[in-house]
Amino acid sequence: MASNSSVPPHIVIVGGGFGGLAAAQGLAHAPVEVLLIDRTNHHLFQPLLYQVATAALSPGDIAWPLRTAVRGQQNVRVVMDKVEAVDRATRRVIVTNGPAIPFDTLILAPGSRPAYFGHDEWAAHAPGLKTLSDALTLRERLLLAFENADRRARFAAAQPLTFVIVGGGPTGVELAGALAEIGRNAMVPDFPALRWDEVRILLVEGGERILPGFSPALSSQATIALQRMGVTVLLKTQVREVRDSGVMVGDRFIEPASVIWAAGNRASPLTQGLGCPLDSSGRVRVQADLSIPGDPWIFVIGDAAHCTGKDERPLPGLAPVAMQQGRYVAEVIRNRQAPGQRAPFVYADRGQLATIGRAKAVAELGPLRFSGLPAWLLWCVVHVFFLISLRNRFRVMSEWIWYYLTFKPGARLIYDGGERHSRSGGQP
Amino acid sequence: MASNSSVPPHIVIVGGGFGGLAAAQGLAHAPVEVLLIDRTNHHLFQPLLYQVATAALSPGDIAWPLRTAVRGQQNVRVVMDKVEAVDRATRRVIVTNGPAIPFDTLILAPGSRPAYFGHDEWAAHAPGLKTLSDALTLRERLLLAFENADRRARFAAAQPLTFVIVGGGPTGVELAGALAEIGRNAMVPDFPALRWDEVRILLVEGGERILPGFSPALSSQATIALQRMGVTVLLKTQVREVRDSGVMVGDRFIEPASVIWAAGNRASPLTQGLGCPLDSSGRVRVQADLSIPGDPWIFVIGDAAHCTGKDERPLPGLAPVAMQQGRYVAEVIRNRQAPGQRAPFVYADRGQLATIGRAKAVAELGPLRFSGLPAWLLWCVVHVFFLISLRNRFRVMSEWIWYYLTFKPGARLIYDGGERHSRSGGQP
Repeated sequence: MASNSSVPPHIVIVGGGFGGLAAAQGLAHAPVEVLLIDRTNHHLFQPLLYQVATAALSPGDIAWPLRTAVRGQQNVRVVMDKVEAVDRATRRVIVTNGPAIPFDTLILAPGSRPAYFGHDEWAAHAPGLKTLSDALTLRERLLLAFENADRRARFAAAQPLTFVIVGGGPTGVELAGALAEIGRNAMVPDFPALRWDEVRILLVEGGERILPGFSPALSSQATIALQRMGVTVLLKTQVREVRDSGVMVGDRFIEPASVIWAAGNRASPLTQGLGCPLDSSGRVRVQADLSIPGDPWIFVIGDAAHCTGKDERPLPGLAPVAMQQGRYVAEVIRNRQAPGQRAPFVYADRGQLATIGRAKAVAELGPLRFSGLPAWLLWCVVHVFFLISLRNRFRVMSEWIWYYLTFKPGARLIYDGGERHSRSGGQP
Repeated sequence: MASNSSVPPHIVIVGGGFGGLAAAQGLAHAPVEVLLIDRTNHHLFQPLLYQVATAALSPGDIAWPLRTAVRGQQNVRVVMDKVEAVDRATRRVIVTNGPAIPFDTLILAPGSRPAYFGHDEWAAHAPGLKTLSDALTLRERLLLAFENADRRARFAAAQPLTFVIVGGGPTGVELAGALAEIGRNAMVPDFPALRWDEVRILLVEGGERILPGFSPALSSQATIALQRMGVTVLLKTQVREVRDSGVMVGDRFIEPASVIWAAGNRASPLTQGLGCPLDSSGRVRVQADLSIPGDPWIFVIGDAAHCTGKDERPLPGLAPVAMQQGRYVAEVIRNRQAPGQRAPFVYADRGQLATIGRAKAVAELGPLRFSGLPAWLLWCVVHVFFLISLRNRFRVMSEWIWYYLTFKPGARLIYDGGERHSRSGGQP
């Protein structure tokens, strides 16, 4: 931290997700000036993004303006801009819409993007789920798929309506479960020409089981729960091709199909310009104190960091990891710890949860493993507890109660007649 | 209604707004088959659309899927499609995405669009407010205007941030008031580089007073209330030019400025192909029974109809007018009234309301005229009462209470980093 004692050091944080925001909040009372840069104007509660994509929640329920989140903090300013690159030589961050921004200390928390295993051309037909914009695109596609199936059923022979979700991790499982619930309970009753047994939801996983981060017993409980809800779970199956008209699953070409990509992530391209060792997912191999090799005042946290845990495996891309990392880095900066003085970052793993549907979830808290209603209630409490504002907590809770009672989610909106997507959508 | 008694007559309704939905619901128990066509999938509570545009409410709070709205009605089917034309000769409606749809009876309720007095090129720089998509575009522009002003204030000399609202009718007044409130109470506190006295809100009206539909006393009360909130009201002033860089108001060119168009409406272009007499706003001059001249089984209702009231002036484009017309037409059809048997449509005018801000509104109920808190409370009750679903009533009410208490509206979201609009936006 190249600073003399009279001028407060300039801390630049790139990304207002869980890690970046936790770092900014951790520096609340430090004698530093913090600039928080994000390409959107809001913090997003990503763990519930799949509910926006499946029309159960509205964007405003799970996002909150970043400026409002740090309004009470005198030493933080927010800049909405896109970061193009980090210039390590001059210690500046290059942004799209203004002069370069100098820093003494940099915290990079730019997150990750969907990864298509070298097939970026699939992205147009199999959108991923990282931003509100992604979720709204996906929502409109899913709703339009029902409208188009209804049209086909009225004017031609009925064809099954197929959704293919690629990737059996928590996001894929949550999307499949939510889609099955919304499809059966909210959508099909609105489309007299469609029957529920004509709607197919395929969850495709390349590995031996879904939710590989959980214990095998919970994986199979989740599989059974999904199957009971009408989801077809395909294991050890590869997606070989995604086109506008359909998708090649194993050696079957399924057409038409709406494809959602939840199979893998790649760190933000920002990491590539740093000149640091990266792993195969583009994540920076950070040191024990989360700094990059050779520069103790540039930190990388969250999904863009490859940070090894006790068993030498990289920590998962979860909100608690990013938040703990943000708080750790804030403390290092607050105490102006020289590299030699820093205790290594240790992730306090409080367990993991994945929800499948109403009253269905799996939980793994250390030695404790359980599923069903207790896991689901815990999941609800944890997620509402972590939502950033009281207002959003209230709105999400009331929306869930409403949905639980009525099965009529209100967010099923196609904004502009679907003209943007009806031509490019998977189901013509 | 060219039908024999064994086949139920086919009623086609174009437009799922207040008029079209009321007509569909009015035909609930009639022995007819109803097809409701809309280019979106939702009914929109347009009177609160300005609150979505000013980030006070979310889209999902004021819209509701049409299919869900008529789910309980066995004789109604919903089609999401765009109606291109009405073929009177073959009695069919031409749609974009399917074969033509035949009808025995047609109810046209396609609404209106912003009108630019022959300057359609202004539309790109001065968006109007008719659809959810419009409201989201407007919201993103307003929020980005603050972000851009903040950027200018950091890197260059501060310039005033100017919003110009064209048109002093209820929509213009409501937008100006809401913008002043959100600007002062929610936005400026989030932008340390901006001062409230550098934000200018201009309400430009060509006529002698704002709210010309109300009594002169209420007009001047509304003017005073707006001025106290920081809005500059310009009367007898024309907007002569709208460009990307700014706007010519009277003989002053204001730059940069974000311009919102609330100055006038034109009926949907669908009316032009009917071969009927239209008024200067493109509205069909309907007969006393709301049918078109020469065809007793084609009706036009709502904003697209020129229907004269007691004083020979056309009825205003208000939700109650459209709803009463929809119910009237449904009754004519239900009773299979021949043209000679029909009593003319009479609008039961229950008064009008316009809101200016928190605890500020004007009301005119027959001889009763009042303003301030009582008018505002009445406005709240009426608007929540008319919202289509219990869920939305609850959400809008809770959102208002939250906003009233905290001044932190949660819908201030820019979805995709504003990349779509930052180039075309009014404030570069």
